[in-house]
This record gives sequence, structure tokens and C-alpha cells, in this order.
Amino acid sequence: MTLKNTRLESDSMGTIEVPADKYWGAQTQRSIEHFAIGRDVMPRELIRAFGILKKAAAITNHELGLMKKETMELIVKAADEVIAGRFDDQFPLKVWQTGSGTQTNMNVNEVISNRAIEIATGKIGGKDPVHPNDHVNQSQSSNDTFPTAMHIAAAEAVVHILLPAIQELRDGLAEKQKQFSHIIKVGRTHLQDAVPLTLGQEFSGYVAQLDAAMANIKATLPGLFELAIGGTAVGTGLNAHPQFAEKAAAAIAKLTGLPFVSAPNKFAALAAHDAFVFAHGALKTLACALMKIANDVRWLGSGPRCGLGELILPANEPGSSIMPGKVNPTQSEAMTMVCVQVMGHDAAIGFADSQGNFELNVFKPVIIHNFMNSIRLLSDSARMFNKYCVKGLEADERAINESVHNSLMLVTALAPKIGYDKAAQIAHKAWHDGTSLLDACLALGYLSEKEFKELVRPEDMVGPKKG
Amino acid sequence: MTLKNTRLESDSMGTIEVPADKYWGAQTQRSIEHFAIGRDVMPRELIRAFGILKKAAAITNHELGLMKKETMELIVKAADEVIAGRFDDQFPLKVWQTGSGTQTNMNVNEVISNRAIEIATGKIGGKDPVHPNDHVNQSQSSNDTFPTAMHIAAAEAVVHILLPAIQELRDGLAEKQKQFSHIIKVGRTHLQDAVPLTLGQEFSGYVAQLDAAMANIKATLPGLFELAIGGTAVGTGLNAHPQFAEKAAAAIAKLTGLPFVSAPNKFAALAAHDAFVFAHGALKTLACALMKIANDVRWLGSGPRCGLGELILPANEPGSSIMPGKVNPTQSEAMTMVCVQVMGHDAAIGFADSQGNFELNVFKPVIIHNFMNSIRLLSDSARMFNKYCVKGLEADERAINESVHNSLMLVTALAPKIGYDKAAQIAHKAWHDGTSLLDACLALGYLSEKEFKELVRPEDMVGPKKG
Amino acid sequence: MTLKNTRLESDSMGTIEVPADKYWGAQTQRSIEHFAIGRDVMPRELIRAFGILKKAAAITNHELGLMKKETMELIVKAADEVIAGRFDDQFPLKVWQTGSGTQTNMNVNEVISNRAIEIATGKIGGKDPVHPNDHVNQSQSSNDTFPTAMHIAAAEAVVHILLPAIQELRDGLAEKQKQFSHIIKVGRTHLQDAVPLTLGQEFSGYVAQLDAAMANIKATLPGLFELAIGGTAVGTGLNAHPQFAEKAAAAIAKLTGLPFVSAPNKFAALAAHDAFVFAHGALKTLACALMKIANDVRWLGSGPRCGLGELILPANEPGSSIMPGKVNPTQSEAMTMVCVQVMGHDAAIGFADSQGNFELNVFKPVIIHNFMNSIRLLSDSARMFNKYCVKGLEADERAINESVHNSLMLVTALAPKIGYDKAAQIAHKAWHDGTSLLDACLALGYLSEKEFKELVRPEDMVGPKKG
Amino acid sequence: MTLKNTRLESDSMGTIEVPADKYWGAQTQRSIEHFAIGRDVMPRELIRAFGILKKAAAITNHELGLMKKETMELIVKAADEVIAGRFDDQFPLKVWQTGSGTQTNMNVNEVISNRAIEIATGKIGGKDPVHPNDHVNQSQSSNDTFPTAMHIAAAEAVVHILLPAIQELRDGLAEKQKQFSHIIKVGRTHLQDAVPLTLGQEFSGYVAQLDAAMANIKATLPGLFELAIGGTAVGTGLNAHPQFAEKAAAAIAKLTGLPFVSAPNKFAALAAHDAFVFAHGALKTLACALMKIANDVRWLGSGPRCGLGELILPANEPGSSIMPGKVNPTQSEAMTMVCVQVMGHDAAIGFADSQGNFELNVFKPVIIHNFMNSIRLLSDSARMFNKYCVKGLEADERAINESVHNSLMLVTALAPKIGYDKAAQIAHKAWHDGTSLLDACLALGYLSEKEFKELVRPEDMVGPKKG
Repeated sequence: MTLKNTRLESDSMGTIEVPADKYWGAQTQRSIEHFAIGRDVMPRELIRAFGILKKAAAITNHELGLMKKETMELIVKAADEVIAGRFDDQFPLKVWQTGSGTQTNMNVNEVISNRAIEIATGKIGGKDPVHPNDHVNQSQSSNDTFPTAMHIAAAEAVVHILLPAIQELRDGLAEKQKQFSHIIKVGRTHLQDAVPLTLGQEFSGYVAQLDAAMANIKATLPGLFELAIGGTAVGTGLNAHPQFAEKAAAAIAKLTGLPFVSAPNKFAALAAHDAFVFAHGALKTLACALMKIANDVRWLGSGPRCGLGELILPANEPGSSIMPGKVNPTQSEAMTMVCVQVMGHDAAIGFADSQGNFELNVFKPVIIHNFMNSIRLLSDSARMFNKYCVKGLEADERAINESVHNSLMLVTALAPKIGYDKAAQIAHKAWHDGTSLLDACLALGYLSEKEFKELVRPEDMVGPKKG
Repeated sequence: MTLKNTRLESDSMGTIEVPADKYWGAQTQRSIEHFAIGRDVMPRELIRAFGILKKAAAITNHELGLMKKETMELIVKAADEVIAGRFDDQFPLKVWQTGSGTQTNMNVNEVISNRAIEIATGKIGGKDPVHPNDHVNQSQSSNDTFPTAMHIAAAEAVVHILLPAIQELRDGLAEKQKQFSHIIKVGRTHLQDAVPLTLGQEFSGYVAQLDAAMANIKATLPGLFELAIGGTAVGTGLNAHPQFAEKAAAAIAKLTGLPFVSAPNKFAALAAHDAFVFAHGALKTLACALMKIANDVRWLGSGPRCGLGELILPANEPGSSIMPGKVNPTQSEAMTMVCVQVMGHDAAIGFADSQGNFELNVFKPVIIHNFMNSIRLLSDSARMFNKYCVKGLEADERAINESVHNSLMLVTALAPKIGYDKAAQIAHKAWHDGTSLLDACLALGYLSEKEFKELVRPEDMVGPKKG
Repeated sequence: MTLKNTRLESDSMGTIEVPADKYWGAQTQRSIEHFAIGRDVMPRELIRAFGILKKAAAITNHELGLMKKETMELIVKAADEVIAGRFDDQFPLKVWQTGSGTQTNMNVNEVISNRAIEIATGKIGGKDPVHPNDHVNQSQSSNDTFPTAMHIAAAEAVVHILLPAIQELRDGLAEKQKQFSHIIKVGRTHLQDAVPLTLGQEFSGYVAQLDAAMANIKATLPGLFELAIGGTAVGTGLNAHPQFAEKAAAAIAKLTGLPFVSAPNKFAALAAHDAFVFAHGALKTLACALMKIANDVRWLGSGPRCGLGELILPANEPGSSIMPGKVNPTQSEAMTMVCVQVMGHDAAIGFADSQGNFELNVFKPVIIHNFMNSIRLLSDSARMFNKYCVKGLEADERAINESVHNSLMLVTALAPKIGYDKAAQIAHKAWHDGTSLLDACLALGYLSEKEFKELVRPEDMVGPKKG
Repeated sequence: MTLKNTRLESDSMGTIEVPADKYWGAQTQRSIEHFAIGRDVMPRELIRAFGILKKAAAITNHELGLMKKETMELIVKAADEVIAGRFDDQFPLKVWQTGSGTQTNMNVNEVISNRAIEIATGKIGGKDPVHPNDHVNQSQSSNDTFPTAMHIAAAEAVVHILLPAIQELRDGLAEKQKQFSHIIKVGRTHLQDAVPLTLGQEFSGYVAQLDAAMANIKATLPGLFELAIGGTAVGTGLNAHPQFAEKAAAAIAKLTGLPFVSAPNKFAALAAHDAFVFAHGALKTLACALMKIANDVRWLGSGPRCGLGELILPANEPGSSIMPGKVNPTQSEAMTMVCVQVMGHDAAIGFADSQGNFELNVFKPVIIHNFMNSIRLLSDSARMFNKYCVKGLEADERAINESVHNSLMLVTALAPKIGYDKAAQIAHKAWHDGTSLLDACLALGYLSEKEFKELVRPEDMVGPKKG
């Protein structure tokens, strides 16, 4: 007895033993046993979002005269602790469970109920004075709470985690754009030498891509701000007060500081999660941009002797124990792997969303799992990439300068003066002999060195013709 | 000799024989031979867009004093014919060619040049008075024209083809929502019987999904309205007049009636096509919605005897030569196959966009090919699905009514009156005996038939509690 | 000071503080700081595989006379502990690190070195008598060890984890096939009623799918059995003994009991991981089969009153607190979510593999991460699905029987006797009147009840015509 | 009347006008009208396969005594013409139709029937003496014929089109491997300079990848060789002779010369197409390999002055009208676009296959459409890439030699002689001063020029240590 380290918890199927030091109840325990699948537990951000939701629901129930003040206050206290992450180890359930997320909703109900009971010095597992279903889940159903928590978790993460991280990287790149604005380099199209531009211009493209990516992401937020809460089991709002939906959404908006609203159509809000497909499409777009940027950085930093060698990457880890200058572009590699993973998440989310039937989509956990994972990976890797790569990037101006002057593409600057045919002749001779354009030009006798140098000025080629 | 049915065309690599009855020139001919890959030619909508672009470029060059009026007028005439589709058979090049689409840009230049020469009664292939490069391609590069044409083609198709088709389907569904608003049916969650809703409410979810899908698609248009034109070879605008970019975009806006603008950063506009990833993400979101809708329709129409049988689908084709009522849900099947294909396109577009290097993304043709294909498939199947399926949908009210009254879930309406325990007892008895809830209730003696019938009213269960 | 809980570790970049209670060294510590990305650490199975590899390498080096016996024995002891999972908490590195996995290779080298030093009562961090590079990594490079460990981990997991789990599910389904072999039910094509088959036949299709899936998976094993070890840095085997590759592979084969061999071409083995794409294609094929099976099970179990209701699913969790018979198909839901996730993994792996350059593919960690995750999810969910769903499946023979006899498709059995036209008339009348075929037949006077019943025998329709 | 250009055709829904010059009948005509979706018609290879199947079925029916000889002979004649492609314009139906492909099966039945009638000088549309259903479709159902034709088309294309094309490319690369076997070049890992290998070794990796890809593809053929024919409507073989399945498969094997067999389980053969997922997984693996190869080729050919410049690509099209040496890697670009497209196909096929229900998968057309498209694109681009790129590849030995001798990685060769510390000092000095290793070594006085040159021999670094 004194050594007993389990207690009995019950649900409508009967009783079951639960570890005595856990706050969860019977339904959580059953899920642990029936869904021992993989290692991915429900995202912590979703648990936090559930805390916010349960708090808002209690407040709303109280405001509508459906819940006693004391009950509400107990729930709010327990929910606040959940929100703060104090009970993160009390949410052991896997992503791979029932597709409505019912078991996680019950996990939250059970933990909040038992913790509230504990605060009220009641008997844990006794469901009194705070009942997991009758109180913590009051006016709610798993079918409307789980998608509501998904939206809260996703929107908070986009606004508070992802966008700031991308802005940070964007600003890091913009800093480099400025720093590199005077450096004229060879352009490359089809991987082949092309007419020049500045290194700053090249970086301006990256900044522009991230600016657009952030604008795209923001354009998908309205869908994430729409909440299913109030739809209850099938979207009709059966058993919920007619004002519950609007008021609960308003309470959540107040608690989070984000403009959440009640979803205009609750049937769609339970049966489809199209907002996640669209929002993740924007994350995929970001991943595509980051892949381009990270690839350019590592290619421009390739070398030290036998690559393009235009950028010098910061040396964070030993690249080679003997080889100076061999700096492996590890941040680019981590970033591009993240981008590839985000593509995989995108495939999974689209597929999952398409599979709803009638009044419910039962692929909710896999959707939020992939979505939050993308947020986390993109945010973290953007910060790391900025801190440990972009900030330390230096241009190898000597190499860049040598390349641009070595480029045969500069011959285009001669064409207006001596005509295409002679210009092409010069280029051919230089290519054939392996010499510079100047040498070839002088050998052919088309221009003096002074004339040549006045015409072949890469710095005049990095913008449109002067008007 | 006199029967000679080829002529010689030339480019910087020399001469090549071209069929005498074709308007294209040397570079097109080389591409035909070097890229005999698959069966997909460049989308017709892209060729039309190129026509618009070449016309706008000629007008702009003339306005800026860079092109003679006669030349401009000849180009405009030929371009107008290209726009009208008159020369669609003159664009034989495959999607699988150079990744910048250079060969298609040259195909357009060559056809317009030769047709303009023909109009001017010159010698086809003679490049006079309208030269494919010097005139038709003036102030341009493949690298900025091809993405410009991509954006024009995509934006026109979204606005003029896709959105109207989806609106049509949306309206068809809204019509049914209204028609079915009085029909109370069993809800289904996890495919299991749940509390009731109206068939109209169910359809309102579909309408809401399509409304959101259209809003999402519109939110991606701004990126498609940004044009690369004026960036020339690497984004610097080298060799273009400083006002060319803005003016050409304005001319295109005027010709199309769509709010095209000059892309704010031309380096990004050539080297990345993130706008397509984001826009196609919205198309994928639409596909997910359509998949849910088409699936629901065919499941609700399953039967005639051994399925759910709530909807009666129009019989368009023989389902079975002997079996009445066996109506295969062929429109749903075509639609869901289209949705699956759109998912595939989405994977291809994201991958392709992520692979740009330095100043150019060389996956342009595969991006526009997949994008236009999605537009076409989604638009066409939405129209067919509406015309040959949604419009003819009828509810089998007898079956629906029987189901909803047969559903044990109605027992929830008794709980407030007789308590959960007794209500559950009734349901258990009905389930066990295979009888109706009423019979079970009467047998248990908990309520009179009159009391039962007053309480168990599905029509009171399709909305929130009365306040 | 006396409380100092860090020690100094060094690498070619200098010294760095490491927690005193950890076995890892400088390079691991740097990676922790530079790659704080996401929550996914390297798969445990890969760490175990590295233990096997390091043990095999030490043994091989000793056999070739390149390593002292004492050194080898120390490494073997430490590696055995790694293999046993004793140090799993000593491998904190994330998936998202350098794309060659160098940092995890060093993590392993450092932990084994320090643990071996500890066993030899040396000074941890002192690199003596067992040096992480000179001894633990002897004759190796990250570039050949990481893919070798990938192959070992993957092959072991396929053979020892996945295949037995699938076999278990396959056998569970075969058991049901037998149990249900006498139950004649309506067939469904296009979701529409079709001619009958037995429930056992339906399940035989699932068994056949899993048999084929297992055969497919086995057909991909040869590629996984080929090991990169011996290729060292670029595939040439520089700095490795000419016999090292073959002997190390043989040692690994001996340690694991699996037929590993030295990869025939080491350049491909480092620069591409096509074997993973192919093997994961087989996992995706399995996922497709499981999706079909799990979907069928939940649809056949839909109801209890308003669905197909042919199967009775085991009730593992409360479906509804008040509603008997409402058993949510939670195992099907977990399974289908897993399948969707595996599709996502497949997209990521293919993309990652395609991105190698020259002598190295630097997407190794993301490939093995996704691959092992698929193995884990498919194995676990197959076992859960079998244990908590398939084993408990029961047929609702009353419902099945009612459906099949209610089906209008049985009319096809009358055609040979009374001709198509009359048979169709009967079906039309039954459909129109909502009656049985028998009633319609009798009303039309085409056959006596006895004649009808002799002809309409579903049990004669579940196989080819008798010869 | 004399001007009448339509005739009436009938099916179980009634009559419909069909263009007088077409062989198709009522069901084809209805499909044309109801499925005006996109531009993709059913693959020609599938139509050919249907011809083979109908011929084999007629022969088998005759052999089993179920069909008159004259009927059989008429069908065989007409089918032979279909096989030969004579009626390719008679199969206008789109991919996006009913998901069982019923309409295409009927299209084939109608065309063969009408053509057979024509041969027999009967009245087209009169269904006599060869009836589309009763004769051409005898012993068959759409549900087993369509997947049978899918397997025939796929297997024939893999064996006769794809594998030879890949072998051709493989041999082209092997030729280069031989040609380049003496050229020592710098290795590159992480895009950074690494220890040397031969250009031939690099190409051997490509050859090995293609050899493995072909082996993988062959390992997937057994699944494609299994035919559904004989399963009829739901897999039971109802209405088919008990020997029909085996005999028809044998007839198809004889007609095609490929080892087709009757599928061991017909329920799986109708309801799932896992064999296509697995086989396409092998095609995706091939695409990954081709992407690596095509990318390497274009990067190695980058330049002419500011890239890696190790390979000289054949100049097939004008890269730049003025710039010699600017050869755009257009074949690589077409190839990588194809690979991206194949990835998209893979996503579509997996999704489609997973969506079967009960006795039928109704995503058959989208599966075969994507599969055949991959075959076509991969085969064509492999041939083009070999012919117009690989065959013409030349090594720029001067540039390669300069790079390898310029590489600081060669310093590793000094370590055994002078120790790591001094070797690293040399590399640092060379890197810092921008000089050669020799100069740095001489400046530091560690070795004489003679000693240095004896030690630093890249040719000794391209294999394992001499034993």
C-alpha cells in the first residue's frame, strides 16, 4: 500500500492503472498502450495551445453563466501551468494515434482536471471538483478543440518564431548586400560566364526572395486565424451556447494578442485543414528560396584553389586537420537538408488534408506534426545560417576581380565600337590562345591599350544603359 | 530542285535546312533535332503570352525612340496573329529543352520575324526588314523574356480560366446547399454515425472550402503580376534603356487588362520562380478541397442498395447494362485523378524552383508546363464535375430519413431528461436487440412514446442550443 | 574550481569546454553549438551501426598489422558498449549538421576514444592510448564511414524489425482470411454494389499485397548490403590498405550475420545513395498497400447503423461515452497517418539523393533520418494494427447477409435463364418499388419462387464458371 | 442524306450521333462529351497493349470453345491493325475519365468491333457479326482488362524502350571512363578541393550508378509481368472459364515474347497497383542517378574562364552569338528537368495507388499516364544526352592539370615524410601567400625541389596504398 506506485483511473470503458506520479488519466493511459508507434510525441507548442484554449473556454463558460467561478479559476490556474510548459512531461502521447487527436484532447483534459483537483486539495483521479469532460471540456468536442489548438500553435509559431528568424537572416543578407555593393564580379547563367554584376546585386536577389517569402507567409495567416471552436462534434455547435464560438475565439485572441476569429463555416473547419496546406505552401516557397541561397553561398565559397572561390566562408569546424582554407560549407549543408525535409513535409500535409470524409478529417495529428516541424527547422536553421555563416562571409576580392577581368564576356563592351565581327574575333583569339582579351585585341591591332581599357569597364556594365 | 521543299536558315553556328512551309528558323530547327524528348510541347498559353510580350516590347522600343515605326508595326501585326493562335503549329518545341527556354524565345523571334518579313513582302529567312534578334528581341534576353511570358500566361489563366471555373462549381454547390437545406441527415465522424446536421450544412462546407480556395489563389496573384522584363541577361538590365522595364510592364498591363508591374528585383526574377511555388501551393490547396468534395459525393452516392445511398448521382454513362441504379461516380473519379496529378505537379514545381544557381534558374520550362497543366486540369474538371454531376445531384430523402432516425446517436437528446445512464441503457438495448431507440425506450419503460417523440427531434440538433 | 564541471577538449581548431560528465570531445561540442536545429537527433540505430563499424575497423586494422592488439581490444570493448546502447545519451548531435555526417562520425570516434581511455585508466580527453582519429578512425574517412553505417543500420532494421512486423500483420490477416472464407458478401467497385465474393477472398487480397510488399522489400536489400568502407575520402581508398575494404566488409558481415559486401564502385558509394531511394520506394509501396487495407477496414466497419457495417472493430478506447457500437477506427487512423508520413519521407529521400556533387553527396543525414523513421513507423503501426485491430475483427454476418441478398446485382444470375431484357426489367422494378428482386420477379410472373431461389445463389457467383 | 456525316450508335442508355468517319461507338462518344478535361489522351502504348489483349482473349475464347473461328479471326485482324497503330486517331479519350478506364476499354471494343464488321462487310454500328461486348469483350470486364493492358504496356516499354536507352547512355559513359582513365584531377567533397582521383574514376561512378539503376528496374519487372486478366468484375472470375486466366496470360506471353503470367491473386490485381509504385520507385532511382550525372557534367563544364572548366561540352546550339567557349549545358538542363518531372510522377503514382477501395482501384488511368510519361521522358532524354552531350565530351587536360597541381590538398603527401605540423605549415604559407606548395616548401626550407617532386605525385594518390 505505502509502496503502491500506481492509482486507478476510470473512463467509460472501466478502470485502468496509471503511474501514481502522473497527472494523466485513463484515456491517456489506454492510448500509451495502444499506440506505441515511433518516437514523435505531440508538438509542445500544441500542448501550450491547448492550455490557452482550455483557459479561454473556461473563462467563456463562466461569462456565459455555464460554469461556477471557482471551477473556472481552478481550470485557469492549471491551464496557466500547462501554458508555461510546467507539465510538458505529462503529455506522452504520440502523433500516431486517433486521427482526430481525441486522445490528446483527453490527455489535456485529464491533466488539467487532476492538477486543478490537486490545487483544490481533492483526490487526484476523483474527477471532483473539476471533471475532465464536464468541466475542462465543457462546450467543446475533440473535433473542434484539436483543430483550434492546431491553429493557435501554428499561428503563434509563424508570428513569434518563424518570421523573426527569417527577418534576422534577411537583415544579415542585406548587411552583406551593402558591404559587397562595390564589388564587381562575373555573372553566371547556365553556370557559364555571363556579363558582370556586383556582388551586392547578387545578394540583393536573396534579400528580395526572403522579403517575398515573408510577404507570402503573412498572406496565409488569415486562414490560420480562423478557429473551429464552437463547432463541437460535427460543426453544428450542438450543445454549445450560441455565443460560445465568438466569445471563445475573442478570449483566445485576447490571451494571445493575435487576431483570432471564429471560423465562418464550422463544417469546413472540422472536415478540412486547407489553411495548413496553403500556409505550408508558403513555407515550402521559403524553403525553395533558402535552398537557392544556401547553394549559391556554398558554390561561391567553393575552393580554396579549384573552385569558384569568390566568397570566404567562416571556419567554424575543422574542415581538414591539415588543410587551411578548406572550410566545409556546413551551414549550407544543414540548411539544404532542412529544405529537402520541408518538401517532404509539404507532400505529407497535402496528402493528409485531402483525405477528409464527411464531417471530419482524421489526419489532424500528422498535419500539425509536419507543420510545426517545418517551422522549427526553418527558424532554427535560418538563425544558425545567419549567425555562423552569413555574418562571417567575406568576399575574396582578388579572386573576384581576376575572374571578372579574365572573363571573355567583357568583349561585348567592344561591339558598339568595332562591330560584332571584330569583337568576336578578339574573343575567339583569346579563347584559342588562352590569353586575355587585351592581349588578343592588341595582337589583332584593332585598338590601342588605352582605347581598350576605356571601353572594357565592367563597372559600366552592371546597370541599364545611361539614358 | 524546283521541287525543293526546304529553305536554308542561318544563325551564329551556320546554316541549316528548314521545311519551306514553316516560319521558324535555324535555332528552332536545331532544337527540334537535339531535343526529341517526350510529347509535351510548350503550352499554347505561353506562346500567346510571348506574342503579347513581343508586341509590348516593340511598342516600348518605338516609344523610347529605339525602333522605327514601320518595324514596330510589322512586329505588332505578326505578334497579333501569334496572340490569336493563328500560328500555333509553328511552335513545335518541347518542354524538355534548354532550361532558360531560350529556344522557345528564339522560336517566337523567328516566327514573328519571318511572318513580318512576309507581310512586308521580303524574303523569308532573310532577316530583313525585321531581324529576329535585333528587332523582335530588341532590349530583351531569353533570360528576362521567358519568365515574363511565364507570368503573363499564368496570371491570365488564373484570372480568366481557373477562377471562373471554380466560381461556377462553387455556385453549383451553393445551389444544392439551398436545395438541401431542409434535409436532416446523420452526421459522420471517423466514418461512424454521429449527431445530425442538414445536407445543406454539409454542402455549405464545400462552398466554404471553395470560397477559401479562391481567396487563397487571389492572394498569390501579386507575385505573378511582377514581370522580369527589363532585367535582360543577368538582371542588371544591361543594354536595355533605363525606362524599358517599367514601360514594357505598363504596356503589357494595358494589352492584357491585368495589373502587371515591373518586378522590384530583377536578380530574383531571373534566378528564382518562387511566385510559382506559392501560387501552385494555392492550386494544391484547391485540389485538396476538390478531393474532399468529390470523395464525399461518391461515398454519399454509394449503393444503390449496399452503400450509404444518400445522394443520387446523374447517370451519364452506362454503369451496368443490366443494373438500374448502378451509377458509377465517374465525374468524382476524373476529379480525384486530377487532384492526384496536381499533387505531382506541386512536387515537381517546388523541386524545380529550388534548383536555381547564381543569376539564372534553368528549370523554367518544367515549371510553366506543370503550372499550366494544373490550371487546365482543375478548370476543365471543375466545369465537367459541375455540369455532369453537381447540377444533377438529388437527395434520396427516404434513405436519408431512415438513416437519421435509425441512428443510435439520437439518444443523446434523451440525456438531459432521463440522465446519461438511462440514455446509455436505451442505446445499448437497441444496439443489442437490433431495434429502434423508441422500441428500446418503451421496453425499458423510461418514457412514453409521446415523451420520446417530443425529445428525439433531429431537427433540434442541427444548431447550437437555443440561448 | 574543485566544483569544476567541465574539462577542456581540443581539435585542430583549438580547445573548447565540454561537460565533465560527457565522453564526447571538441568536435561534438562545436556541432552542438553550431547546429541547434530542431529536435531530431541522429537515429539510435545509426549509432549502433557505427559501433559495429568501428569494432570491425579495429579488428581489420589489427589483422592487417596496422594496429596493436591492445589498442584494438580497447576499441572493441568501448564499441561493444556503444552497440549495446549504453552510451545513447552521449550522441546528442542533430540530423541537421554537416551533410557528410562528419560530426557524428567524430562524435563516435570521441566517445569510443574517451571510453577506451577510461577503461585503460588514462586521462579522458588526453587522446592516449586511444586517439579518436589515429586509432578509432584509422583507415577510414567520414565520407566512407557514414554511408557504411547508414547501410548497416538500414539493412539490420529492414531484416530484423520491419519484415517480421509485416509478416506478423500478414499472418493476422491470413488468419482472418481463413476465418471469413465462408462469408459471402456484396462486392463493391466504384463504391457501387457489384457481384459477390467472400469476405475471405477480400482479405486474401490484403495478404497478397503484403506478400508482394515483402518480396519487393527483399529485392532491394542487395543494394543496402553494399558497403562504402574502404573508399576513404573520395572513393580511391587513399591511405587505406588495399585489402581493408574487403576485410572490413567481411568483418561487418560476421558481426551482424548479414551478407554485407564491399561496394563494387566506391565513387558511386560516396557520391550517391540510390540504394536508399530504391529501398524506400519499396517502403512506399508497402505504405500504399497498408493504406488500402486500413481504409477498407474502417469503411467496412463504418456504422454502427448508418454505414456499411460489415466488420465489427474491437473497441479499444471510448468512442462515445454514451453510444454503444460507436467504435472509432483509431488503429486505421494511426496507420493511414503513418502511410501519409512515409510518402513525405519518400519525397525527401529522392530529392536528397539527387543532389550529390562530384565525389560526395552531402545529404546523408537527412536520408538516413527519413529512412529509419519510415522503418520505425511502419513496423510499430503494423504491430499495433495487428494486435489491437486485426486480431479482434469480427464479421457482422447478419448485416453482410442482408446486404448481399438485398443487392440488385444478383439479377445477373437470372439472365442466362430468362434473358437480359427480363432480368433488367426485374431489377428496374425492384429498384423503382424499393422491393426485393424476388418480389419483383414474382410480381412480373417470370419465375416461381422456387425457380428464383435455385438460380439466385450468391455462393455460386464467387468463382469462375464451373468448367 | 448524302451529306450526312454522322451515324447513330447505341448503348444501354440509348442512341447518340457519332462522326461517320470514326470507328468508335456510343460509349466513346459519351466520354468525349463528359470528359473534356485537359489535353492528355490515353497513352498510345496502352492502346497497343489493348490490341494485344483483345487478340489474346479472342484466341483463348476460341481455344476454349467459346467463340467461333470466324469471329475470332475477324477480331484478330482488327486487333492486329490496332497493334500496328493504324487506328491511333480512333482513341480520342482522355486520361481524365472514369477511374477504371472502362471508357477506353469500350473505345477499344467499339473500334475493333466496327473495324471487324467493316472487314466482314457488315454495317458499322450494327454490332454484327462482331459485338463489342459479347465478342470483343468476351470473358472480360473493364476491371481486369484495363490493368492487364497497363501491365503489358509498362513491361513492353521498360524492356524494349527504357532499358536499351539507358544501356546506350551507360555505354557512352563507359567509353568516356576509358578515354579519361589517365587524367588525374582534383577530387571535390563538400564542393571543396579534396585529394585527387582520375577523371575516369569519376565517370566510373556514373557507370556504376546506371548499372545499379538497370538492375533495380529489372528487379521490379516480375510484378509487372503478373496479369489481372481472368479476374473479371471483382476478382472472382465470375463468367469466365476456369482456364481463361492462365490461357489468356500465356497467349499474351506468346504474342509479346515477354514472360507474362496470371496474377496469383486477382483481388489484389484489380484493387491495387502496387507493382507500379515499386517499378516507378526504380524509375525515380534512375532519375536521381541521372540528375547527379547531368549536374556533374554541367558543373565540370562550367566556364569557359570563371568556372571549373574541366570538361568541354559539345556546342550544339548558339550559346552566345559573340562568345566562343560559352556552351550552355542544354542537354544537362533538359535531363535535369526530366528528372524533376519524374519525381512529380512518382508522387502522383504513389498517391493514386494508395486510394483503392474494396474490389477496385479507380485511379488506373492516372497511374499509367504518369508511368508511361516517365518511361518516355527518361528514354528519350537518355538518348539525346548521350548523343548530343556525352559522346562529344572532351577533357580540358590543361585546366585539369593546373587545378590538381594548384590544389593545396596535395600537401597530405608530405605528411608521412616531414610530419603533419610542417606539412600544415607549408599549406598555410601557400594559402596565405597565394603561392604554390612547392614555393612555400622551398621558402620554408623543409625539402629540396627534387625531394618535393618525388613526394608530391598526384598519380600515386588515386588508389589505396600499395600493399
